[in-house]
Amino acid sequence: MTGFASRTEEIAPFQVMAILEQAQALEAQGIDVIHLEVGEPDFPTPEPIVKAGIQALKEGKTHYTPALGLPELRQKVADFYQSRYGVKVSANRIAITPGASGALLLLMAARLEAGDELLMADPGYPCNRHFARVFEAHGRLIPTHAESGFQLTREQVQQHWHKSASKAVLMASPANPTGAIIPHEQLEQIAVQTRQLGGELWVDEIYHGLTYHDARPQTALVLGDDVIVINSFSKYFGMTGWRLGWMVLPEHYIPVIERLAQNLFLAPSTPAQYAALAAFNEDSLGIMEERCLELQQRRDYLLAELPTLGFNIPVIPDGAFYIYADASALTQDTQHFCQQLLEDTGVALTPGFDFGEHDANLYIRFAYTTNIERLKQAVSRIKNWLEK
Amino acid sequence: MTGFASRTEEIAPFQVMAILEQAQALEAQGIDVIHLEVGEPDFPTPEPIVKAGIQALKEGKTHYTPALGLPELRQKVADFYQSRYGVKVSANRIAITPGASGALLLLMAARLEAGDELLMADPGYPCNRHFARVFEAHGRLIPTHAESGFQLTREQVQQHWHKSASKAVLMASPANPTGAIIPHEQLEQIAVQTRQLGGELWVDEIYHGLTYHDARPQTALVLGDDVIVINSFSKYFGMTGWRLGWMVLPEHYIPVIERLAQNLFLAPSTPAQYAALAAFNEDSLGIMEERCLELQQRRDYLLAELPTLGFNIPVIPDGAFYIYADASALTQDTQHFCQQLLEDTGVALTPGFDFGEHDANLYIRFAYTTNIERLKQAVSRIKNWLEK
Repeated sequence: MTGFASRTEEIAPFQVMAILEQAQALEAQGIDVIHLEVGEPDFPTPEPIVKAGIQALKEGKTHYTPALGLPELRQKVADFYQSRYGVKVSANRIAITPGASGALLLLMAARLEAGDELLMADPGYPCNRHFARVFEAHGRLIPTHAESGFQLTREQVQQHWHKSASKAVLMASPANPTGAIIPHEQLEQIAVQTRQLGGELWVDEIYHGLTYHDARPQTALVLGDDVIVINSFSKYFGMTGWRLGWMVLPEHYIPVIERLAQNLFLAPSTPAQYAALAAFNEDSLGIMEERCLELQQRRDYLLAELPTLGFNIPVIPDGAFYIYADASALTQDTQHFCQQLLEDTGVALTPGFDFGEHDANLYIRFAYTTNIERLKQAVSRIKNWLEK
Repeated sequence: MTGFASRTEEIAPFQVMAILEQAQALEAQGIDVIHLEVGEPDFPTPEPIVKAGIQALKEGKTHYTPALGLPELRQKVADFYQSRYGVKVSANRIAITPGASGALLLLMAARLEAGDELLMADPGYPCNRHFARVFEAHGRLIPTHAESGFQLTREQVQQHWHKSASKAVLMASPANPTGAIIPHEQLEQIAVQTRQLGGELWVDEIYHGLTYHDARPQTALVLGDDVIVINSFSKYFGMTGWRLGWMVLPEHYIPVIERLAQNLFLAPSTPAQYAALAAFNEDSLGIMEERCLELQQRRDYLLAELPTLGFNIPVIPDGAFYIYADASALTQDTQHFCQQLLEDTGVALTPGFDFGEHDANLYIRFAYTTNIERLKQAVSRIKNWLEK
């Protein structure tokens, strides 16, 4: 009897945070740690965005904005869908949120009752099921397989759908921890299937833009005005610490989300919103494209090296900055493996358990969020350690 | 059947937002509106704080911080309790949050089960009961009276406590919408009573510091390490749009709140946190004290004038920037009264219904968040309108 709400017992801390803590303890002892665990690239926010933020602060723009965000920022997001994807989206359908986290929180508060189910892929972003849990609903983890790119399939949605409880399917493309983009046809099938079942399709596109080899996935918004898309300024736009995201919603959602946002958040950060107004400028987009190339080089390096160490990479990431590697040739307990590796070599990785339950003991996520020199050092340290 | 979770039906929009919308529509027609409805002063963030934010941005401080905030900011908050209140609080007990809103959300998620009750004063801050509602708990509004400063009393806590359901009492001092500070003895009695009942006392101190005539209320933290205090950089420190607050918690709460914060928010805004590091500097505190004097002049002006218009002010506000006026000599329907007044004169006020149910039709909140010249215009417009 802790006195805490029972939901708190089911909300696990990130493994990655425990790893990070262990890493920081080592660093405090003077040990050099190579951080391949955290989902945040080493790049700072692009300069044009920072400049816009500074300018706004100098102009005294420090008051509350409307709960759904600055109208001009909602319009810029709408314009971006037109210019990048050729998709017409009304600015009225866009809610600016405190990070994609804020978007997920509002969406689940709006839609999920006690006992409701939200279908999601295992492996996936760990917080998703915890958002459902805080609202007394259940994030139903569906084991996915390398053959379908660790993404859900139409058949799985059909098979796992509970008419009385299932409310929506939450997908991510590119996905965390796999970096996998779902083929457009596969996503379309899921959209059609979910609609037939009377449910909603929610798509997390926070890694959109961070894609390689001219892979330019289409936004799920083209699949219908009933599809809900979650996005963020954190990853592609390099604004992690500013805590700003957005959501594209069917129109009838807007008054409900607005009411919830007013009550739960008041409004998203004002300086962040003014900074983000510059995120869609050519200058900023140019910087982001350079960063994509840099990430691609890092990925290509690891794709070449990790197999020589004994890791198998069943799904080649097309985006984000993650490789989900099968370590079963090296260990059956990646949690222990990662702990030991960190302790012995200072290389920090995230074990599969952060992302679900299915074969989690066999997988490790490599986040290539540090430069290629450091990646080379990491590979060499792992190599020496494995050879011992 | 809207498809939305049933909680959404019980979460009302702020009346003040509807008023604000109506006001903005009038402004779009070129009508001059005097805004006495919104709970946000006209002052921008003090310059030393803005400068610190700009400096941090220039230094590339745009990455995630720990979920509970920068250790140095947690320490500064702890030091502030020592220097201002003479209270020793360990930095480990402080959680930096995305606004006081974020603090309330985490606290209720941690503590309230489906069906649990949270006792609170009517009138009070409207979102409080909605935070409880999103977690399937119930914010129990207890009618308060002018004689006890529109604050709860020990007797009321005892009388309304349900052994099976009640978990905590949420107080605010200075309070919104009344500006009333609860006498320390009254709060102490409630702390003792709540503890005896096996519950927790939560105190919202976001208007602390914004107090007049050298009224320097003591923080509720002196009443025991089990008392939870919510605070914010928004009001006293003038950082509304930055969305930054904090909470002082019993130590055993920290790992639970940290886990929830990791999952629901990741972390508070990084630029806001670096800016807030300068909030406790002498320069900043000096600016805030000047603002208190300015607010006091505004209050004194309205306290003198409103009774001549027919408003009765049963409780003299000692802090915040609100007057909760009894309009029963003028109307029995303050909602209609406020709408009509806005339409006819351009003076925007908030009717009592935003703050609860008890006698809400008789009360109006005046937020003196605009300068004294404008207040004079408002008084003169109301006077002319009433005389018609």
